[in-house]
Amino acid sequence: MSRIDGRTPEQLRPITIERGWSKHAEGSVLVAFGDTKVLCTASLTEGVPRWRKGSGEGWVTAEYAMLPRATNTRGDRESVKGRIGGRTHEISRLIGRSLRAVIDYKALGENTIVLDCDVLQADGGTRTAAITGSYVALADAVGWALDKKLIRPGRQPLTGTVSAVSVGIVGGVPMLDLCYEEDVKADTDMNVVCTGDGRFVEVQGTAEAEPFAREELNALLDLAVAGCTELAAAQRAALETTLER
Amino acid sequence: MSRIDGRTPEQLRPITIERGWSKHAEGSVLVAFGDTKVLCTASLTEGVPRWRKGSGEGWVTAEYAMLPRATNTRGDRESVKGRIGGRTHEISRLIGRSLRAVIDYKALGENTIVLDCDVLQADGGTRTAAITGSYVALADAVGWALDKKLIRPGRQPLTGTVSAVSVGIVGGVPMLDLCYEEDVKADTDMNVVCTGDGRFVEVQGTAEAEPFAREELNALLDLAVAGCTELAAAQRAALETTLER
Amino acid sequence: MSRIDGRTPEQLRPITIERGWSKHAEGSVLVAFGDTKVLCTASLTEGVPRWRKGSGEGWVTAEYAMLPRATNTRGDRESVKGRIGGRTHEISRLIGRSLRAVIDYKALGENTIVLDCDVLQADGGTRTAAITGSYVALADAVGWALDKKLIRPGRQPLTGTVSAVSVGIVGGVPMLDLCYEEDVKADTDMNVVCTGDGRFVEVQGTAEAEPFAREELNALLDLAVAGCTELAAAQRAALETTLER
Amino acid sequence: MSRIDGRTPEQLRPITIERGWSKHAEGSVLVAFGDTKVLCTASLTEGVPRWRKGSGEGWVTAEYAMLPRATNTRGDRESVKGRIGGRTHEISRLIGRSLRAVIDYKALGENTIVLDCDVLQADGGTRTAAITGSYVALADAVGWALDKKLIRPGRQPLTGTVSAVSVGIVGGVPMLDLCYEEDVKADTDMNVVCTGDGRFVEVQGTAEAEPFAREELNALLDLAVAGCTELAAAQRAALETTLER
Amino acid sequence: MSRIDGRTPEQLRPITIERGWSKHAEGSVLVAFGDTKVLCTASLTEGVPRWRKGSGEGWVTAEYAMLPRATNTRGDRESVKGRIGGRTHEISRLIGRSLRAVIDYKALGENTIVLDCDVLQADGGTRTAAITGSYVALADAVGWALDKKLIRPGRQPLTGTVSAVSVGIVGGVPMLDLCYEEDVKADTDMNVVCTGDGRFVEVQGTAEAEPFAREELNALLDLAVAGCTELAAAQRAALETTLER
Amino acid sequence: MSRIDGRTPEQLRPITIERGWSKHAEGSVLVAFGDTKVLCTASLTEGVPRWRKGSGEGWVTAEYAMLPRATNTRGDRESVKGRIGGRTHEISRLIGRSLRAVIDYKALGENTIVLDCDVLQADGGTRTAAITGSYVALADAVGWALDKKLIRPGRQPLTGTVSAVSVGIVGGVPMLDLCYEEDVKADTDMNVVCTGDGRFVEVQGTAEAEPFAREELNALLDLAVAGCTELAAAQRAALETTLER
Repeated sequence: MSRIDGRTPEQLRPITIERGWSKHAEGSVLVAFGDTKVLCTASLTEGVPRWRKGSGEGWVTAEYAMLPRATNTRGDRESVKGRIGGRTHEISRLIGRSLRAVIDYKALGENTIVLDCDVLQADGGTRTAAITGSYVALADAVGWALDKKLIRPGRQPLTGTVSAVSVGIVGGVPMLDLCYEEDVKADTDMNVVCTGDGRFVEVQGTAEAEPFAREELNALLDLAVAGCTELAAAQRAALETTLER
Repeated sequence: MSRIDGRTPEQLRPITIERGWSKHAEGSVLVAFGDTKVLCTASLTEGVPRWRKGSGEGWVTAEYAMLPRATNTRGDRESVKGRIGGRTHEISRLIGRSLRAVIDYKALGENTIVLDCDVLQADGGTRTAAITGSYVALADAVGWALDKKLIRPGRQPLTGTVSAVSVGIVGGVPMLDLCYEEDVKADTDMNVVCTGDGRFVEVQGTAEAEPFAREELNALLDLAVAGCTELAAAQRAALETTLER
Repeated sequence: MSRIDGRTPEQLRPITIERGWSKHAEGSVLVAFGDTKVLCTASLTEGVPRWRKGSGEGWVTAEYAMLPRATNTRGDRESVKGRIGGRTHEISRLIGRSLRAVIDYKALGENTIVLDCDVLQADGGTRTAAITGSYVALADAVGWALDKKLIRPGRQPLTGTVSAVSVGIVGGVPMLDLCYEEDVKADTDMNVVCTGDGRFVEVQGTAEAEPFAREELNALLDLAVAGCTELAAAQRAALETTLER
Repeated sequence: MSRIDGRTPEQLRPITIERGWSKHAEGSVLVAFGDTKVLCTASLTEGVPRWRKGSGEGWVTAEYAMLPRATNTRGDRESVKGRIGGRTHEISRLIGRSLRAVIDYKALGENTIVLDCDVLQADGGTRTAAITGSYVALADAVGWALDKKLIRPGRQPLTGTVSAVSVGIVGGVPMLDLCYEEDVKADTDMNVVCTGDGRFVEVQGTAEAEPFAREELNALLDLAVAGCTELAAAQRAALETTLER
Repeated sequence: MSRIDGRTPEQLRPITIERGWSKHAEGSVLVAFGDTKVLCTASLTEGVPRWRKGSGEGWVTAEYAMLPRATNTRGDRESVKGRIGGRTHEISRLIGRSLRAVIDYKALGENTIVLDCDVLQADGGTRTAAITGSYVALADAVGWALDKKLIRPGRQPLTGTVSAVSVGIVGGVPMLDLCYEEDVKADTDMNVVCTGDGRFVEVQGTAEAEPFAREELNALLDLAVAGCTELAAAQRAALETTLER
Repeated sequence: MSRIDGRTPEQLRPITIERGWSKHAEGSVLVAFGDTKVLCTASLTEGVPRWRKGSGEGWVTAEYAMLPRATNTRGDRESVKGRIGGRTHEISRLIGRSLRAVIDYKALGENTIVLDCDVLQADGGTRTAAITGSYVALADAVGWALDKKLIRPGRQPLTGTVSAVSVGIVGGVPMLDLCYEEDVKADTDMNVVCTGDGRFVEVQGTAEAEPFAREELNALLDLAVAGCTELAAAQRAALETTLER
């Protein structure tokens, strides 16, 4: 059974993770899952939001957006519309929760890291690419802060790694890492966020057409866990090279 | 192992479904999951949004909101703030998708049903109560439209039933239908939407503290499916009585 | 001369005042004027708005809103529209002024009470029901604060009672407490807010069709004062029972 | 008993009504009640809002605003704040209702008149000056449209005249047409809108400090009716001169 | 070659500068360039925006707006639309920059001056009239603050004078101070802001139809510099009279 | 006299123009002026805004935005703030006007082209890079539409070419194409938009510190015209290669 783009059902698209994309940000990654390209920057600033002041704990949050022509048809800018849509809100919250799952707030100290995930080109799986790329940008920002002694040495703020992938049932077949054309045809669509040790941070499955059965859910989870393992390896490989600043 | 309110881990809170709450709406239900009370109204109007005109198909959508003092501490009104928050957006979208999963748009014809879910009092599980109650309000609105011949007879727009429940791991124990106090302490929190025949419409699991393992996920899904079965029975019982208009 | 619902011109609709409706709020009342049902909650918090800090004086304010399907035809949510309409603003301000008329700010101390009046079902007279119900919720919140010693004992913050009723000229006949169907047909529509001792807090009369003469104004004021006297008695009766918290 | 500015309690401030102030508007008036100066323009366009199309009836509406430094302390612009405040909404609605009271929609035909009342300098009574000036601007716009045959001849769209004045109880004394300094000190504040034949269009009385008794209300109404009679005469005098366009 | 209104190409319209227009503002000017009338008020308050606190330096900013019927066709209010348009933003920023060019922040001390420029009637050149009038209002506000000893004596906060004029090429002829009808027909439109000593603060030239050549640009600049010199003289003349407060 | 980055005063930064950056847009260019990188996409759709329907003429407009971390310090998203700032508005309008200067609306037919200029990394001159890159994206979109026969053949919608560059006086020396560090120190800052034949489309000069004299203005214009000539050559070179789609 071959897919639109020639992949097997359990195959990821070509993944690239380009670190140090921006000269300004403390961490910055241009991540590609096939034709999906997301620029992830991590901005670290001293201080925390008001409700957290004096706690000795840091904060991590995320904002996701699409360039208007990232998609096949131009979408109106949310800045022009004057309000952020539900989908944007939902994905921003998902990215934030996913990365907070591997942060030790105490070790981070009263610093805030904002992850900005801007989709430059979309072809399905933008939120999972954003999470996968953001982890690497986050790691670089944390590394930078440790180097600059902005974070107390001796305790690593990152407690693990995190990556994400989409899975879905297309034409009755469970598949990994859907491109846009597959996504549109999927009966069930699931986004899974895993830590590097194979546990779950988020599982979000939606029946697009037909409700799905327990065994289908299981097949999708198997695919997703395998995919996240591969992505974790790609993240590790990217982080092993030396980043010049 | 007994819970805060004396329930066993696999026990729902007392569920009440009061139909015909409002004299104006085509369907209206005051649903209670313990102290969580949600007013669900279904408003049916002829016509569909512009992008669907001429398709012969209907549309179902939902809006969720909380009264400012539904919670222990008063929250600012979103109307006063001038924007809807991410959580509200997310839940409104979830409710809409859940109910659309049991709608045959062709059978509905070019009619729109809006489900308004207003939380009058909150004690955990407001979104799952809203879905469970909305299904009954939706069924009443559809019944009303069939009676009035606004929907062509001979083909039932409802293709099944849908209900929802929250599950979570609290103090290491998987539990069904968390109240607010349990929800705050949960390590993992999941909302599951099932059809009456035990298949999944939505599965949304989030690691609040620790990432969760596959076996924990499985235990939570078992609890949720059993809970939804009970809720489906409560919906059926409520719909069996005659509603005076 | 009998009315749409069989009342005499000078007769109120059945009035019910249900205290302690919400488990969270310091004061909460579900008030009904016939089919008009308004949930009034009083939220008391320590502290006052910035412009009043250090004055030793408290503050009372109100927000009014309608659930989207409180009316016969569904109205769009103001939170979704992103702005509050003129009618909502106007009524919120009226309720706030009305209740501030019976508050001794010094005795209240630097505490703020917000009255939220959410119309669950509308059938005319929602603002007058809201004022009448809010007074009882306010009294309960003040009582609660006195019990908790959040307000200095020895001086009662409530300097009187306040209630409100609508009056109007329908088909040439002055009538008390108009239901929606009467309100639509009224030539003149007036809302009157009185203290328990029969003085005026607000008089708002509007010629809907024909301008009105002085004698018509006088007849309406007579009806309104009598109506408010009855409502004050209903408030007193409701407050005489013991409220379990 | 002499007032701050030397007037007797029943005396208006100097009233000026300058027609034809703007070269663009169909009607335009710079009205002054003492130091209160309001620019009222009437813009007449063919067509009516969507909900009125095909009815054969016209529409009249109003918008009120203050220049930021119309008052003693600069206020933020509502355009900059991004939302219109409750007071602005309330006054705009009052002006619109007041002028619609003397309009025969059928005679106006499907035309819309918008009255813009911009307060250039404020010293109390801005809304009553706005109503009084707007009537004259409205009359000029109607006259212009009759001249241009945009309105069918033979039936006058204006069914009467309308003017407005504020009254209040200051230091125990009922007074007419309060200036700002008096307004701030008033116990009771009332705005009254009358037709030229002495009937009421709006009566809005508010107890600022103490609730007010029936006899006080009566005294204020007497003053207001007399004041509106004088204002109607000033309007008539202004309209008797020939307006060059 | 004579213009629409009989002027020669290098002639300004009649300019009037009426100081002390408002009784509330620290400086206020009604400036007219022909039929263009702009009310400019300068509001001086102690203190500066947060980002400037403790610097010992003051701040000057400006806001420009048009009354809805300042123009031939009524425009919607930006307050009602809930957002400020690009043109308004652009002009407000231009006015602010222009006046800051002649301010010595140190000499001003930690005071803020807001210039509000409200166009009462528009006939081309509203932004240049606003700058020219605002300078005089600013000078009056500074004079007032020096009198009141709110600004330390000995050092004049105004380092020069500033005025502005529009120029354009209409029907091939470079012209000064375009009225609306000329502006609409202009191929090139330029706004020039000069100091009293003939140097440039802003030069903003736009090709409305055809791109313009260097010699055209030079001709326009010559006209503009001459026009600003005349305007500076008019400002000086206005400021030489004694202002009663 | 050597600059911060070693350039001579009349030297541009390294310019790159990468066509076909996006797989979705009808035209797309990643333009770099040194470290300033702007993604310019041209989206062509059939139809024009309502006010232009039936005219037979097309429309071109532009939207400019910065990614939050395009700059050294993270800026808040305008979508999150709910409104577009003055600077964004101003630049979007400038880009739109600049490109409309080389469009023959009749030849374009009733088609709309939206240019989206998103700054991925900022180092001064973002608006001039955006205009220069947008021209190339626009040319590609027009070429695409001619290929697809969406535009009538025989008449080229592009009437010329357009490019832009910043100039300024830094430390008394007129310089071309300022980087951010120079821009901050500039006394005078000017943006100049030229057609390929050396005429002006826009000239926007601002005195940041001292007003500038006529000879300084002339020196800056000389530099700018020379810079635009070089940029026009770079555009031509980029467009000469074959673009694979």
